[in-house]
Amino acid sequence: MDYLFDKEVAVEKTADNRYSGKVHAAWNIGDNPNGGYLLSIILAALRDASSHPDPISITTHYLRPGSGGERCEIEVEPVRVGRTLTTLRGRLVQDGKARLEVIAAFGDLEQAAGVESDITIPPPDLPPPEECVPRDGSLQNIELPINSRLDVRLHPDFAVPGKAPSPQVSGWIRFVDGLEPNTTSLPLFTDTFPPSSFGVLGMVGWVPTIELTVHVRRRPAPGWVKALFRTDDLNEGRMIETGSLWDSKGQLVAQSRQIGLVLQAS
Amino acid sequence: MDYLFDKEVAVEKTADNRYSGKVHAAWNIGDNPNGGYLLSIILAALRDASSHPDPISITTHYLRPGSGGERCEIEVEPVRVGRTLTTLRGRLVQDGKARLEVIAAFGDLEQAAGVESDITIPPPDLPPPEECVPRDGSLQNIELPINSRLDVRLHPDFAVPGKAPSPQVSGWIRFVDGLEPNTTSLPLFTDTFPPSSFGVLGMVGWVPTIELTVHVRRRPAPGWVKALFRTDDLNEGRMIETGSLWDSKGQLVAQSRQIGLVLQAS
Repeated sequence: MDYLFDKEVAVEKTADNRYSGKVHAAWNIGDNPNGGYLLSIILAALRDASSHPDPISITTHYLRPGSGGERCEIEVEPVRVGRTLTTLRGRLVQDGKARLEVIAAFGDLEQAAGVESDITIPPPDLPPPEECVPRDGSLQNIELPINSRLDVRLHPDFAVPGKAPSPQVSGWIRFVDGLEPNTTSLPLFTDTFPPSSFGVLGMVGWVPTIELTVHVRRRPAPGWVKALFRTDDLNEGRMIETGSLWDSKGQLVAQSRQIGLVLQAS
Repeated sequence: MDYLFDKEVAVEKTADNRYSGKVHAAWNIGDNPNGGYLLSIILAALRDASSHPDPISITTHYLRPGSGGERCEIEVEPVRVGRTLTTLRGRLVQDGKARLEVIAAFGDLEQAAGVESDITIPPPDLPPPEECVPRDGSLQNIELPINSRLDVRLHPDFAVPGKAPSPQVSGWIRFVDGLEPNTTSLPLFTDTFPPSSFGVLGMVGWVPTIELTVHVRRRPAPGWVKALFRTDDLNEGRMIETGSLWDSKGQLVAQSRQIGLVLQAS
């Protein structure tokens, strides 16, 4: 286990369906651990408890912020173990308080489950990573310790708050230390870009996720992952953001949708 | 309670966080109760247990088919009760076996939660309901008892299996008996159209949902609800379908996404 992500989401089994881990502050955005990173710690426990390797549907409710630098406990509850799917619940607890509540179904993406087709969403055109803008916390006025772990590059037309032509953000993502993407890390990649509404709304404040659902579609090829997120709807402060990830071969590897709040900077 | 939907999703509280109800066979598609209808029975229990009125995020895992005409029990577990959100889990059980596992967050859609904007998805153009095609089970070779409860009209260009120009289905939906839509019935409306892949794939078999997530966005105005669903991706038999609903005023009232299997007709 030579890579930072693997080390920093690792959990230890302490009893049947009980795991212990640590929330590393290196994955913080501002003062709070990134939600995709917290989810990845639960996923490590769920994957250990699952009879199938690939998380094909993961829903997370973010109940309370996590605490970077502190221990955490993960409680797992098997819901159903079938021939082709394992469904489980997971809960991440710090200081006796539930922070995330997850339900996930694991399967085997290499195993055909029904009719095949070529129906898919094609990747968008994007300037290559070296012509994109590295994510910079100063644009959002926050510290980004997570930049020590993830290399995120934004499409230049959508990188400046208030200057984008539509409520979307696109770009590239990979691990800083050379770890290649896999089906366990793709959910993290769906929750680590700036909110897609910033480009048109300008500087707003915190955008806490209420619930995030990720569908992993294929095992990714090595290399940069291409990402596109757009705000579908923002009403009374509640937004829906839909995202897609493609691997270096142009295959759709994950889709995401979240509901979150868009709060005014205080 | 003069309307069929209200009567047929009604549950009775039997103990703290325990409810009892009946799965009415009138909502069957073929031999199985419609998934959106089963979800609506759990939602009735969750809504009773919630401190907030509107389900703003609902995720359901379909573990096993339900049984029409049989009783059911609903187990509720509060996850978090906050000032602006109530998060709960629910499970529908028949014959001692869990059929659906749900996690949902309830809020108050009339209460502003943050920044306002006009970002939204506009409704598609559609022929009026009287120029659309009533959903007919003979096209899918199944009985549709649910047609006694729901009036579903399909865009004529997408109504015939194998003849559609793209993997989508659109149309109109309302209750047969004049009940107007509300935030508790919109989740049902996201799971009662023919699968959006049928139009291009032609006659395939059963399309069982693994997991469905619905976001209710606004309280709907009275009248027909307009619907659009498309298959984003179909790989190794696993499909992602994304849907949107608009009310008679053209407001986006719900969005949905599901992962399901597309199985060959046997």
